[in-house]
Amino acid sequence: MAKQDISTPKGTRDFSPVVMKKRDYIFDTIKDVYRLYGFEPIETPAMEKLNTLMGKYGEEGDKLLFKILNSGDYLSKISDNLLQEKNSTQLSSMICEKGLRYDLTVPFARYVVQHQNEIQFPFKRYQIQAVWRADRPQKGRFREFYQCDADVIGSNALLNEFELIQMIKEVFQRLNLKVLIKLNNRKILAGIAEIIGKSELITDITIAIDKLEKIGFEKVVEELKEKGLSDENIADLKPILFLEGKAKEKLDKLAENLSSSEIGLKGIEEMRCLTNYLKEFDLLNDVEIDLRLARGLNYYTGTIIEVVSTEKNIGSICGGGRYDDLTGIFGLADISGVGISFGADRIYEVMEELGRFPSQSSNNTQVFFVNFGEKEASYCLPILQELRKNAIAAELYPDTAKMKKQMQYANNKNIPWVVIVGKKEMLDNMLSLKNMLSGEQIQIKKEELLLHIK
Amino acid sequence: MAKQDISTPKGTRDFSPVVMKKRDYIFDTIKDVYRLYGFEPIETPAMEKLNTLMGKYGEEGDKLLFKILNSGDYLSKISDNLLQEKNSTQLSSMICEKGLRYDLTVPFARYVVQHQNEIQFPFKRYQIQAVWRADRPQKGRFREFYQCDADVIGSNALLNEFELIQMIKEVFQRLNLKVLIKLNNRKILAGIAEIIGKSELITDITIAIDKLEKIGFEKVVEELKEKGLSDENIADLKPILFLEGKAKEKLDKLAENLSSSEIGLKGIEEMRCLTNYLKEFDLLNDVEIDLRLARGLNYYTGTIIEVVSTEKNIGSICGGGRYDDLTGIFGLADISGVGISFGADRIYEVMEELGRFPSQSSNNTQVFFVNFGEKEASYCLPILQELRKNAIAAELYPDTAKMKKQMQYANNKNIPWVVIVGKKEMLDNMLSLKNMLSGEQIQIKKEELLLHIK
Repeated sequence: MAKQDISTPKGTRDFSPVVMKKRDYIFDTIKDVYRLYGFEPIETPAMEKLNTLMGKYGEEGDKLLFKILNSGDYLSKISDNLLQEKNSTQLSSMICEKGLRYDLTVPFARYVVQHQNEIQFPFKRYQIQAVWRADRPQKGRFREFYQCDADVIGSNALLNEFELIQMIKEVFQRLNLKVLIKLNNRKILAGIAEIIGKSELITDITIAIDKLEKIGFEKVVEELKEKGLSDENIADLKPILFLEGKAKEKLDKLAENLSSSEIGLKGIEEMRCLTNYLKEFDLLNDVEIDLRLARGLNYYTGTIIEVVSTEKNIGSICGGGRYDDLTGIFGLADISGVGISFGADRIYEVMEELGRFPSQSSNNTQVFFVNFGEKEASYCLPILQELRKNAIAAELYPDTAKMKKQMQYANNKNIPWVVIVGKKEMLDNMLSLKNMLSGEQIQIKKEELLLHIK
Repeated sequence: MAKQDISTPKGTRDFSPVVMKKRDYIFDTIKDVYRLYGFEPIETPAMEKLNTLMGKYGEEGDKLLFKILNSGDYLSKISDNLLQEKNSTQLSSMICEKGLRYDLTVPFARYVVQHQNEIQFPFKRYQIQAVWRADRPQKGRFREFYQCDADVIGSNALLNEFELIQMIKEVFQRLNLKVLIKLNNRKILAGIAEIIGKSELITDITIAIDKLEKIGFEKVVEELKEKGLSDENIADLKPILFLEGKAKEKLDKLAENLSSSEIGLKGIEEMRCLTNYLKEFDLLNDVEIDLRLARGLNYYTGTIIEVVSTEKNIGSICGGGRYDDLTGIFGLADISGVGISFGADRIYEVMEELGRFPSQSSNNTQVFFVNFGEKEASYCLPILQELRKNAIAAELYPDTAKMKKQMQYANNKNIPWVVIVGKKEMLDNMLSLKNMLSGEQIQIKKEELLLHIK
């Protein structure tokens, strides 16, 4: 048979066992913490109806949706005239009814509306699933990747924000990564835009502010002037941008600056409440109020959260915020939610580069039995069974291959213990047990194996 | 905003927390057993190139593939003439390069060939992922469903078959389901076709035999005659079909019947070797040699396995077999493999109907705290933290809602313990602890909670 192209589609990956175990380590850590705080799992289908997805991610997002061709004779209903126009975008909407999910937020919103009568609010759900985007693949950006979301929906309390931050702290502590949790509040940003008299420019202002670190103050000023801010506006803005000090000081100064903005003061009050919780639990040193933080402004309406590694400059590895109207797009109004999402791929990259994955996966085979032949294998099988009964993963090489090949197998699979049974061991009712880490090899009685492994 | 259609696509499902926990219980049980036997996880992308998938599942299968529309101006390269033909099948292959995976076997074969130089053979991998088929949805059949595969590839030893059967037994024992493991061997079927002089009809014969239970002997004879078997052929076949007795007797009788067929005797030898292993481990009562078992004849070349519930008539809930040439389709010859696959949806259905799911999920919230106000919440938060530090999932209602509503929340989430803290409890440094199962409520000291829960 002719040799075929055997690669995966552009921007997608196979995950081999070594990588899988590391990824599972991250996912399991996140899941464990989510559950500890009372969040429950849901899953939604890979495919959604296109009318669920279209128009939710902007024009650019619509283009990045993977669309699924209708089954059967999908062309039969298309008029010849329309075909002749050769308008790909227009035809797509007529020959495709489904698309692959682009994120977990929109399917979750759809889920909440569809199941509103079964759901117990406040609903604390987590969801860890793949999403697909027809983005141009590049280093660290894939067309298939996982999102790990947790949201509380149907509660306005800032206690939720506090618990989400506790969870972020807990996850990264368990992963042994040092992070800084940046906080902002959309209402404060709105207040700032209001007091400089340019409420309508809040998005432009915050986008420009967001670039402060990357391009510097001069360039930001340039941008803001282009957007229509006067020198006076910028003079008003400057002290706010460069607020220094601890959370309390920053908030006190801000309260002065924003004293005439109702929404600004509301934002400060929210932030004060949140930082009070954090202070009580000694978490103030883990967070920083950063007014330049402007992610997700299209949908966040209150608290904004972004987490960065303090050990490696790789951008955001977790983020989230509060949105007052997640489900409005599907016809269910006034449901407030707040959520976070961990970026598994970036976290993986940081952990890998810093060498933070545990050297031994608990899901690994613990004991390997060399296979010297049928009789020896039969001698080993009940011992294997005994180990497995004690929840110790064990395997016997299925074929009678050369010792070297079998040891290489054990070595490549990173198995810590090797049992060798030849004629002599069988005669004496013994085992040879090799510690693959130290290289040490000892003879023990058959019955003693469990003790040695444990 | 206008109310939208908010349902999932036909044949796909949302999984709500209650269902998710039960599904996870099944998946985790399967995974635990797979790992215990040294199998390692891999994952492959949801999308494969269409040339990887097409032609692997027969003509019918090709039609059931979900195809993904190419991004961008996919029509620009299509000639006007071709468009005017309005041939949906032909156009699909020109505007789609990718499809959703249809099973886990073909992607696994592709994976093995692509990664052959990194893989340590024999390669024991498991893979639990969704697959998609544009089948007509019906009761119990979905367009998105999970497969749970384990395969050993690169080893001919029958020890692998034995271990796979051990694993099947272990999984269903842990799930508390009674099953019968049916065994057959493709080589024995080939031998049968050979001795009745109709080797070329092996597939027709076995398909007809497979229907024996459903349609009865008379109808099967009718079908076989249509396929070209003579009365004499059928007379030769009949005693083999109705072989009775234990494994050893069946195999002895078969050996007589097939004494002139080399391949038939090879099959019997394989089956004898396998049943010897099973006998040694007291598993003979769990299996039955069933020559009418004919699943996967297109690819299985040796042992064939099928598992049915003995408590509920629902068809196969697990199956598998040996295939001598999995990777040949992708240009890597002579790699023998053997594998099994659990049908998660049917297992779920059986467990649900028989009430075999554990009543309490270990992933559930264990302790719920009623929220009576800001002060009470603050009193509770450090206690929550203490519980979570001890790996006990706990949650505090985020809002100050009515007691009844909060208790309902705890009840609906199936939380076994509820902590109630009002002014009196705070004053006395106490807690009220309610056992939701018994309804009993007691007053305890703050510090005693952990002890009570554990």
